[in-house]
Order: sequence, then structure tokens, then C-alpha cells
Amino acid sequence: MTAFDDIAPQLAAQAIELPSWAFGNSGTRFKVFSTPGTPRTVEEKIADAATVHRFTGLAPTVALHIPWDQVDDYGALARYAADQGVALGTINSNTFQDDAYKFGSLTHSDPAVRRKAVDHHLRCLEIMAETGSRDLKIWLADGSNYAGQQDLRGRQDRLAESLAEIYAQVGAEQRLVLEYKFFEPAFYHTDVPDWGTACAQVTALGERALVCLDTGHHAPGTNIEFIVMQLLRLGKLGSFDFNSRNYADDDLIVGAADPFQLFRIMVEVIRGGALDPDSGVAFMLDQCHNVEEKIPGQIRSVLNVQEMTARALLLDRVALTAAQEAGDVLGAHQILMDAFYTDVRPALADWREARGLPADPMAAYAASGHQQRLAAERVGGTQASWAS
Amino acid sequence: MTAFDDIAPQLAAQAIELPSWAFGNSGTRFKVFSTPGTPRTVEEKIADAATVHRFTGLAPTVALHIPWDQVDDYGALARYAADQGVALGTINSNTFQDDAYKFGSLTHSDPAVRRKAVDHHLRCLEIMAETGSRDLKIWLADGSNYAGQQDLRGRQDRLAESLAEIYAQVGAEQRLVLEYKFFEPAFYHTDVPDWGTACAQVTALGERALVCLDTGHHAPGTNIEFIVMQLLRLGKLGSFDFNSRNYADDDLIVGAADPFQLFRIMVEVIRGGALDPDSGVAFMLDQCHNVEEKIPGQIRSVLNVQEMTARALLLDRVALTAAQEAGDVLGAHQILMDAFYTDVRPALADWREARGLPADPMAAYAASGHQQRLAAERVGGTQASWAS
Amino acid sequence: MTAFDDIAPQLAAQAIELPSWAFGNSGTRFKVFSTPGTPRTVEEKIADAATVHRFTGLAPTVALHIPWDQVDDYGALARYAADQGVALGTINSNTFQDDAYKFGSLTHSDPAVRRKAVDHHLRCLEIMAETGSRDLKIWLADGSNYAGQQDLRGRQDRLAESLAEIYAQVGAEQRLVLEYKFFEPAFYHTDVPDWGTACAQVTALGERALVCLDTGHHAPGTNIEFIVMQLLRLGKLGSFDFNSRNYADDDLIVGAADPFQLFRIMVEVIRGGALDPDSGVAFMLDQCHNVEEKIPGQIRSVLNVQEMTARALLLDRVALTAAQEAGDVLGAHQILMDAFYTDVRPALADWREARGLPADPMAAYAASGHQQRLAAERVGGTQASWAS
Amino acid sequence: MTAFDDIAPQLAAQAIELPSWAFGNSGTRFKVFSTPGTPRTVEEKIADAATVHRFTGLAPTVALHIPWDQVDDYGALARYAADQGVALGTINSNTFQDDAYKFGSLTHSDPAVRRKAVDHHLRCLEIMAETGSRDLKIWLADGSNYAGQQDLRGRQDRLAESLAEIYAQVGAEQRLVLEYKFFEPAFYHTDVPDWGTACAQVTALGERALVCLDTGHHAPGTNIEFIVMQLLRLGKLGSFDFNSRNYADDDLIVGAADPFQLFRIMVEVIRGGALDPDSGVAFMLDQCHNVEEKIPGQIRSVLNVQEMTARALLLDRVALTAAQEAGDVLGAHQILMDAFYTDVRPALADWREARGLPADPMAAYAASGHQQRLAAERVGGTQASWAS
Repeated sequence: MTAFDDIAPQLAAQAIELPSWAFGNSGTRFKVFSTPGTPRTVEEKIADAATVHRFTGLAPTVALHIPWDQVDDYGALARYAADQGVALGTINSNTFQDDAYKFGSLTHSDPAVRRKAVDHHLRCLEIMAETGSRDLKIWLADGSNYAGQQDLRGRQDRLAESLAEIYAQVGAEQRLVLEYKFFEPAFYHTDVPDWGTACAQVTALGERALVCLDTGHHAPGTNIEFIVMQLLRLGKLGSFDFNSRNYADDDLIVGAADPFQLFRIMVEVIRGGALDPDSGVAFMLDQCHNVEEKIPGQIRSVLNVQEMTARALLLDRVALTAAQEAGDVLGAHQILMDAFYTDVRPALADWREARGLPADPMAAYAASGHQQRLAAERVGGTQASWAS
Repeated sequence: MTAFDDIAPQLAAQAIELPSWAFGNSGTRFKVFSTPGTPRTVEEKIADAATVHRFTGLAPTVALHIPWDQVDDYGALARYAADQGVALGTINSNTFQDDAYKFGSLTHSDPAVRRKAVDHHLRCLEIMAETGSRDLKIWLADGSNYAGQQDLRGRQDRLAESLAEIYAQVGAEQRLVLEYKFFEPAFYHTDVPDWGTACAQVTALGERALVCLDTGHHAPGTNIEFIVMQLLRLGKLGSFDFNSRNYADDDLIVGAADPFQLFRIMVEVIRGGALDPDSGVAFMLDQCHNVEEKIPGQIRSVLNVQEMTARALLLDRVALTAAQEAGDVLGAHQILMDAFYTDVRPALADWREARGLPADPMAAYAASGHQQRLAAERVGGTQASWAS
Repeated sequence: MTAFDDIAPQLAAQAIELPSWAFGNSGTRFKVFSTPGTPRTVEEKIADAATVHRFTGLAPTVALHIPWDQVDDYGALARYAADQGVALGTINSNTFQDDAYKFGSLTHSDPAVRRKAVDHHLRCLEIMAETGSRDLKIWLADGSNYAGQQDLRGRQDRLAESLAEIYAQVGAEQRLVLEYKFFEPAFYHTDVPDWGTACAQVTALGERALVCLDTGHHAPGTNIEFIVMQLLRLGKLGSFDFNSRNYADDDLIVGAADPFQLFRIMVEVIRGGALDPDSGVAFMLDQCHNVEEKIPGQIRSVLNVQEMTARALLLDRVALTAAQEAGDVLGAHQILMDAFYTDVRPALADWREARGLPADPMAAYAASGHQQRLAAERVGGTQASWAS
Repeated sequence: MTAFDDIAPQLAAQAIELPSWAFGNSGTRFKVFSTPGTPRTVEEKIADAATVHRFTGLAPTVALHIPWDQVDDYGALARYAADQGVALGTINSNTFQDDAYKFGSLTHSDPAVRRKAVDHHLRCLEIMAETGSRDLKIWLADGSNYAGQQDLRGRQDRLAESLAEIYAQVGAEQRLVLEYKFFEPAFYHTDVPDWGTACAQVTALGERALVCLDTGHHAPGTNIEFIVMQLLRLGKLGSFDFNSRNYADDDLIVGAADPFQLFRIMVEVIRGGALDPDSGVAFMLDQCHNVEEKIPGQIRSVLNVQEMTARALLLDRVALTAAQEAGDVLGAHQILMDAFYTDVRPALADWREARGLPADPMAAYAASGHQQRLAAERVGGTQASWAS
């Protein structure tokens, strides 16, 4: 197996983007629980993201959601973030919380609604210029609940037109990233349900349009690492939304539900060159912390990604290829499992300490008293949630 | 095939309970859309349920959700309902929206939380005495999101204890009905995930404890009519929560996602005697109308159940049994499909007219102007939703 | 709703290709049951297919599977088929029953195995020239059972190379159609698991390379009609393999498991122009008759497709579009359901009689004594199954 | 965390039963591949099982399948096994490969078929007396492929009657264990589809009737460790059939598809006392080795169970309970994950060596030349497969 020292450079380069909304309250249609210390403002969300980065060294950027994170002066916000030690990252559009979008946004049969939705995306592109963000990420709630409710084909064509209008304004250094989702909040069809649809739509746009793979957005049993491989092979993988799931879009902590799946995904990430510095693939979290603490939840998440990345990097690919080509089923499988079963936690603790980071970020955060301070300080106001 | 006239008595006896909450606003974690005319009070919800009954003759009772439908005087509420032409039905408890229940209610490791949850159910039993309701329906959001978060076994034992304490107060004419659900809002485990668990728990209680089968609460691919058969065979089916689903607990209009499945369920309902007047099985809707109109949504729903019941009643069981026992696969299947494919809508329209009901309740409601009147009258106040 | 007379021309043009292997014995890994009268030769399979066509007027062509249907003289076989009243259709390659293909065929890491597999397909193209077939259909069992067993990316690249070599020999009037499958017989990954992969591979080849959609080859919950819409929109739908499923690739009679799904698929088929005479989309059955009679099983299947096509053609698209664009959820859904619930069987019976066909092909076949004659005549020899 | 030395006694007591059929050829409906050295006789299968035990010390018994393993003198077979160093274990009945059982066995509507099926089980009980086996394991292929094909309720009642007749002959030291399966080879319904049905059936029989949980026999997304917990709580878990799956009843090597799931199952096994010497719970493999070597496949499998058992035993339950009761979601989850991520392989290697076993059984077997000897010796005859 590869030695740990050999993989240190790749670990040093790893960066995972945090979602600002992970620090606000979230929940289900049944209940959203609040917790003391939850941010009330965009700035407080960014401060929390910076705290995660301070304890882990893994999370140098934070993604924004518009209009949840709307401010008057994005340049000032970018400077605020820089002061905290992080940068602003991907801009996420939101066309699912306005009454106008009840029956769709970019796909709507009414040109006025499409106009409004396209304009929102154009505004996001402007914000990106101010924040210095590279990626506009588009996830659509568009879909329908009943067979016959909407015209699948017409919506797909209108989606293509709307995206083309947005893409025309994407700058030379910017990218449009389209996310797909199997279901929810639409329960009969969604307009971008699978990677094939997302890929077809972005391919029609051009080179700076790519696909976002959210690990929770697939049908039961889907082999996600295969899709990772395929999108990388086709040159169409723009970014990851990491989380984990047992049933649906559960938005649990990445690596919590099926750690071996995360490992296999990272193996294909490396196999396809997506960890290379110039790959352009963005690694983001997209999670909810419905019942667990948010800052430690994010720390746990980036550590999970780091640990699985280390295991995947340790994989002896020369031996693996030899076993694969020899048709040695058990041998090849064991080489993979040997990497997965290697306990990288002690080596990573040492590696962190050598870089001036806490050996055990979870314990260090718990011992820091930071959470108690936030709870004491952040009194009054309205806690952030999935609302602007 | 059986003649339509022969099934008229069974159709005449059919009654489907409506959920008060179907008339309020509902949605997903992403957005709840509101509509003009939505009820602001329990009384307005009951009035809407009565409207559905007036147009269909199918919905003589309405279920309440406590505390969503909490009032000071339940006797007065029952009289109000009677004045509207309906009766109050099942009382649904709710232990998922109080902060105390974040980590469970009847299963919680803290005795004080269990006490609170048990007391809520005892209060529901008192309400039932005032409303004249027979059934206490218990659906629990109890569960966990992460492996290790909770002790599955301890929770199951505590659930048994809590239920026993509640059951001890269930009156001689009352029943406790326990609902199971595969997942959501808990995403790693739910404490009553399947019919086997619900059945084991209620069997330990006694004869007046039964299972509620919600058609949307199963794993993908589950043969639901088999469970209907089995629960009826074991004498443990208390009630149905009807709705339909494509993916998860989508709570769509019953019969909309897979009409043939609803037909097969009704075939087993009849096969197991659950349509008999003394079966004790309650047929309820439990749905959301996230994007469609609510009153017509409920009218559509009860009509769907009626139409599938009629098709199932038309099934030639003598011929079916003969084909089954002869091993005539295609013959038996065709006998079933012949009943399913029979268009019962014209006969049902005649039958309705003969009973003083509109031949086409959907068209009659649309033509009545009732929805417009509600929209004009119900101005101000706070529209009802999944909150008390 | 559209009048039945108006759809008669489209019904008259409908043609469904039968698979020769549907007439042989099939089963599961646990058991293959045999039945009296099962064909022993390719000619007898073709004769049975011709019988289905004689009783229904719906099945003018038969697909062959090579090497299961290997003969010395394909020209003679084509003439035999013509004498029976049918034509030879799609040629299906088979690279999953030779020991050489244990770890793959077109994707294998050993060039010698790929050579053998490519050569098999080139031979199939030659056969197509002799039979006058248009389509070479490729379904691969290629995949792996364990993570690490094979290199997903390398296999995908080799698949592209192998397909390119085959495609280079596809004649100007011929087509290559690539089928995808979610799983089985490979249980960790399949090399063409989804429509996205099939589409990417055939798009890289050229215009005469298309996708085959087998209705049983998707993850649980997949909205198949969406894929139909998308492939038609992209101009990449080559053919259907019809069957139905409750769980996996169950290969049940089309329309048996979820008739409403078949209806929705036919609605999108029509919406996308695939029923037009020049669409080029082939409609085939790909089923097993493990426990039911084979000839009547195929009769039932083509009738199911015909009946659902009729229902879908009756859909009032003008009214539907109006309701969709008005955001009338319940109205649009009801217009769709009205078409689905229309009992087209009497009109189809009349229509058949007017064309010299039996009004009830199932009853006519049962009454014909044909099955008994086959059982009496076809004695001795080896009954056909999934083997050459 | 618990120290490795403290768990050594429990590891020493661990025993996993091997299925004789794992050493024969198996495959899918598409193809069964054969391998050199595959056993031709029951004795050779037992010899192979003994080889697995010799290299691992984990597999002291071997299960038989009747009639696949039918012999004239079971006493002699038991002595042969003892000479090899293993004992005969569970007897598996087989009522799915005789033409009579096409439409069911213990559930069939024809009393003559039920008679035949019951008699087969009575014969199995006699064999158990001769082999000294404790458990009769019943898995039924009974079910149907099409709605309407069979009467679900009647079959369930007949199943109860048939089982009662068998149970009446189960000796005081014997047990009847009923296995459930979600689907396959029946594709519309199976007569024992879920643990609830199996539990209801065996509960009606008596104390020596229990449930067998096959880890591959559940709907997608099912929380299997919950069922383990529940069956143990109800005192109804008789045995495990271990394997793993990605999609359906894939019968892959246990722990290969989702190692974390196997860990969680073992955690509940320990939590419920099933690893205690007197628990009576049997741990068996039920797998196929379609593409991998069989003896090393079985070695890999028992090692996987052992490794996950060790991890689960290392779990710090005191700390876990404290975190659970404190509502410390992340803390409790981490305590669980700490056990899972502990690399127990070096300690297990030492432990094996201390007991005179090879430190690395996989490597030792590969180096032994045993497989090559078998391939050279076992020439001619008919290789064993799923047939008698």
C-alpha cells in the first residue's frame, strides 16, 4: 500500500466548501428545531464557517444561497469573509420559495415567470462578479406532483431556452453548474431528475456548463461512483454536493450512512483526476443538521471527507490493476478493502499537529467553549433558516 | 362479472373519513404555498369537510389532530359538526412538534418526556369521550438520524411501557390504533417502521389495540395488498390512511400514483371482510394538497376510493377461484383485470343522481361558486397549516 | 375526448415485434419449468410468433437471438418466416454465455476477448444482411460483482472502442441499438447501467447508433416516461423492450404490473412522435413466460400494448394543454385519467372484427385447439430455452 | 474502548455454519460458470467446508440441502464429516425444483401437492435425527407472478396448516426455522415476504419455531439491524443467513457490499445477547460464488464476519449509553464509528497465530497449493450445482 507520507501533498491541497445554510436551523415539514447560538445573519454564518476552517484547515470557502444570504454590499461581505480567514465560493440560486414559482421557474409555461427566474439568475451572476465567485449552481424545484399536471417535453425545451439565456451571460472565468435530483419537492416528476438530463442540458450550452452531483439525489441502489467516473470521463463533472442518505434526500452528514460508499466515490474521484489541482471540480457539503450541533456537524463532515480521501489515496493502484487484469476477483477486492480498512486517524492526527492544527478537531472544538460563547452572545434576533 | 346493481348496497354503506388537516395549507421543507379560502379555524375545516360530504355522500366524518384542532369545548365542536352534517371521528395525537420531543416521545430515555407524551395521549382519550370518537390514532415521529445516536432496543421496550400505560385508559368502546412508517422525519431508524413492529406492539396490549396502515409508509416495491390481507387475517387491521406515492411519503391523492394498486388493495379489503358493516376497519384519507385545490382534492380522493371499490366489488370471485385453483395464470389474471378495466363511472353517476347527489361531483363543485365564495369570505386571520 | 374512429388509422399502423425466445422455456436461477408444445427449433419459434400475429394482426415481425437462433441459411429462414406471414426483425447479439466472457466482452481488459466479442457482432451484421434486418441490438451482461473487481473507467473506454469498431461496419440502412440495464447478472456495477451512459456511448458513434429502453431495467421509482420523453427529444430513442416489473428485471407481461405506467409511456410515445410512421422507433417485447402459457402470453402482451395505445390516443391534448397552462392541477390530471379509464375493449373488438380478426383473440386462441395440437405434435427433441 | 484481550473469549466461541451449496457452481438465469476443482459429491463439498475450517477455525459445521445433498446413509455422512473435522448442521428443505411445485408447495391449493411438500419436510426431520442436526430451515419459493393468479389469503391459511403438520413432528431438541424473502423467484407476491409474516406464522406454531433472517431478503433501504433487534426482543430469532447485496438477493460475500451494515447488525446481535453461548441463534452463510473462487470466497466470508464481530465487541457501550441518554448525537455516533474504524486485523492475526491458525488465512490458502491439487484431482464426474 502507498505510504502515508506520499499522500500528504494531496491532503494538503484538499479544500471542501461549506454551505452557509448548514449553520442555520433546518428540519423537515414536520418540525424545525432551533438551537442556542444559531446565526442570525450572513456574517454570523460566515463566522461559523471560518470556525470550522480554523479547527480543520479543510474549509477555506463558503457557499452562499441567494436570497437567503442577500446583502447590500457583496464586496464588503467578501472582505468580511477574508477577515475571518475564508473566501466566498459558489453562488446558489433559489427559485423555489416565491409564490410565482408554484408550477415551475425556468421551465414554467408562462413567459413572465420564466423571465423572473432568468433575471434572478442574471442577478446571481452579477453577485458572483462582486464576490469573486466562480460557480453559479442551479438546483431547481421544478416538477409536478401528478401525471398530466404538466407537459414534460415542453418544460424540457423551455428549460433549455432559459439556461441558454443565463449561460449567455456567464463570464469567461465563470461556470454554470446544473444539479439534478430524483424527487422532492416535486413528487411525480422533476425537470432535472438524473445525471443524463443534467448532462444533456449542459452539453447543449457549452464548455463552461457542467453538472453538480449531489450524493443524496439518486434512486435507491444507484451506483454513484459509476456516475462520478462517467461524468469525469465525459469532462462534465463540475462539483459535488456531499451528504449522505439512507432513504431519500436525507441530507445527513457525509460518510455517516455508508462510509464505504464515500470511499468508493473518492477512489473514482482520484482515478478520474478530480483531485488534481487543475481539475476544476469543486467539493462542497450540502447537508442539514436537524438534530445535531451545526459547527461540530460541519467539522465532523469535513473530517469524514478527509479520512476517506486518505484511505482512497493509500490504495495500491498498481497491485489493483494487476489483480483486475488477471481476473483475480477476491484479490482485487481485497486490495481495495485493505485501503478502506486502514485506520488513518492516528496518522492524520499527527499530520494535523505538524501543521499547527488540533490533532482532534472535534475534541478541541468541544473543549474550546466556543459553542457556549455563541449561545451566550447570540441572543435575540431571528435565527437563520431556509428563508430569506 | 357481478352486476352493478348487486354491489349498490355495499357502495351505499361506504364511508371515508376526512382529515381536518387536508383543508389547511401543507407543503414541503422547501415551501408551503397558501391558497385563498383556506380555513383559519377548526370550524372552517369541518365546514369544508362537510362540503365534501354534501357533494359526494361519501365522507360523513372528520378526523381531528391534537393540538392542531384544539378547542375549549369539544362537545360544542361535535354539535357544530353535526349541524354541518358530519360527525367527529378519529383523534390523532401529536408528539412531534414540541421541543421536548426532539429525541423521541413515548420512546424517550428521559422519564419526564415520556410522562409528558403519555399525558398528551391521556388527554386525547378524554377528548374522545367528549367528541364521541372511537379511535385514538398514534403516529410517532420517534426515531434517529445516525447509527449509534439512540438505543434501538431500549426505545422499543420503553415504547411498550408507554403504550401500556395509555392502553390502560382506553375505554371499552374505544380503540388504540398504532401507525407505522418506513422513514421521515427520522432518517436512520424509526421506532415503528413496519407492520410487524406495529403488530407486535399492539398484540402485547390487547384486543382493542390495532394497526393503522398508511399506504404511503412502505419501502419501495412493497406489496401492500399482502399486508392488508395479513393484518385482516390476524384480526389486527384497525384503519387505513389512504394516499398515494411515487417515491416516499408523498401524500398524494389516493389512487393518483398507481390506480391499479388501490384496486388490488380494495380487492383484499373485500376478500378479508373489511367492507362488512361490522368489520370495524376505518377508512381514512391522510393526504396533503400542496399544489392542488383542497376541497376538490378531497372530492377527487373519495371518488377515487369509491370507483376502485366498485371495480373491486364487480370482480367475479367464483370464476377467479376456479381459475386460480386450475393453475390458469392468464385466465385468473384476466378475470382480475376485467374488473379493473370496467368503466364504472357512468353507472356511478346514475347511482349518485338516484340518491340526490350530483352525477359529477367535481363538475358540480366547480360550477357551484363555493370556492370563490370561500376566497371572498375568508379574509384575514391565519390560515391553518401543520401547526397549532 | 378524441373519438375512437379518429384513432383507427394509427391503430392500424401499429406493429409490435415479438422475441423468438419468448416461445422457449425460461425461468429463474432456481428452476426452469417446461411446457408441452414448446418449440424445439427456430422455425417452430417463428411459427408460434406467426400464430400470435394471425390472432391479433399486431405482430408482423420476429426478433432473433444469436447464437440461440443460429441456422446455416438465414435467407431460407427469412423465406420460411414470410411463408408463415411474418418477417425477421432485430438481431440480438449474445456475449454472455461463453466462458470467455466471464469478466466481460466488449469491455474486457484482454484484447483477445474483445476481439472475439467484436467479431460476434460483425457476424451479426452479416446475418442482418441475409435476413434483411435493420437493427443490431446490443445488450451486455458486462459488469462486476465486487467493488474493486474491475476498473470502471477503463472498461468504459474499451466499450467505446469496441462499439466504434462495430459501428464502422453498420450499413447505411442498418442501425446499432444499445440497451442499458440497472443490474443483473452483474451485481456491483454494470457497464451500461442507465440511459445516460447508453446515450453518451451512442452519441459518440453517430446518427445510426441509438438507445434501447427496456421498461424493466431501471432503479425502483424511476419515472420511465420522462426518459422516453428525453430520449425522443434528443433524437436517440431507437427501440423499446416492453415488459413489466414489480421488483427487478422481472420480465413480466407488459402492462401487467402497472398498467397506468404503460399508459403514461404511450402518452409520451405519442407526444414525442414515436408512433408516426417515419419515427424509426421499434416496439418490441422482451419478456419471460416462466409460469404462464407462451403463445397466449404473447397475445395478451400485444393486446395490452394495443389497448393502452388506444387509451393514450384518445387523450384530449388540446384540453390537456389548456389545463396545464392554466395551472389547473386537478383538471389536467383528470383529463389524463379520463383517457386512461376509458374502456376501449368493446371498440377494439369491433375494430378487430371489421378487419377479419377475432374479436377476442385470447378466447379465439383458447377455442382453436392450437395449443393442444402443438402439444401433441411437438414430441421429442430438446425444447428451446436460453441456450443455443 | 474495550481492549482486544477482553473480547478474545467471545471470539473464541464464534462459529459460523457453511452452506454445502456454496462449494458447488452457481450463477444467474443467464449463465452458470464452472471452475476446476468444484466438488462432484456431497463428501467433496464437506471436505471443502472442512478446509475452510482448518484455515480459519471459524466454521465447525456445514449445512445440507435436501435433495441436493441426498445420500443413502446419513449416519455415515456424519461420520465422514467428523473425520474431516466438522459436523453436519442445519437441514434445508427444497420444494422449488419439482414440477409439482410450479404454483406452490406448502401453500398449494391442491391437497396432493401440499401432502408431497409436507412429506418432504417430514423426511427432512428424519434425516436430522440421523445427522444429529438441530434445525430444519424452510425457505419457500411459493408465490405468484401476476395479480389475481393466486389467492393470497387462502395460501396463507394453508401455509399455517402445513407448517402445523410439520411442527407436530419436530422433536423436543429440534427446531423449525422459517425464512422470509421479499421477492424471487416469485415476482408479484411471495407467501413469506417479510419478518412480520414469518414471525406471525412461527408464533402460531410454538416455542421451537423461529425466524431465519437472510440479510439479502429485504426491500431497498430496509434497516436490517432494527429487525435483528426486534426479533431478538421478541425471542423469535432462530438464525441468520449471511450474505450481502447491492440490489436484490445478490448473494454476495457477507460484508462486501456494505461493511458498515454488517457492523451495525453485529452490534445489535451483541446488544440482544445473540452471541451468548446459550442464545440458540445460529449464524450461517448463504451465498453464491458466481465469479470468484469458492473455498477462498468462504474463507473471506467467515473472516469478514469475525472482523466485524471484533469491531462490534470493542464498542464502548457504557460511553455510548451515556452519550445516547445525554442527547449527544455526534458524540454517540462517534463512539460507534470509533469501534467500526478500528483496524482489528493485526490483533486478529496475532490471535490466530496464538491458536495455531495461519495469521493470514487467505494468503495461507493461496500458498498451500490446495486449490491446484483439487483441480488436478477432481476430474470427470458432474460438478455440483443447484440441482440434485
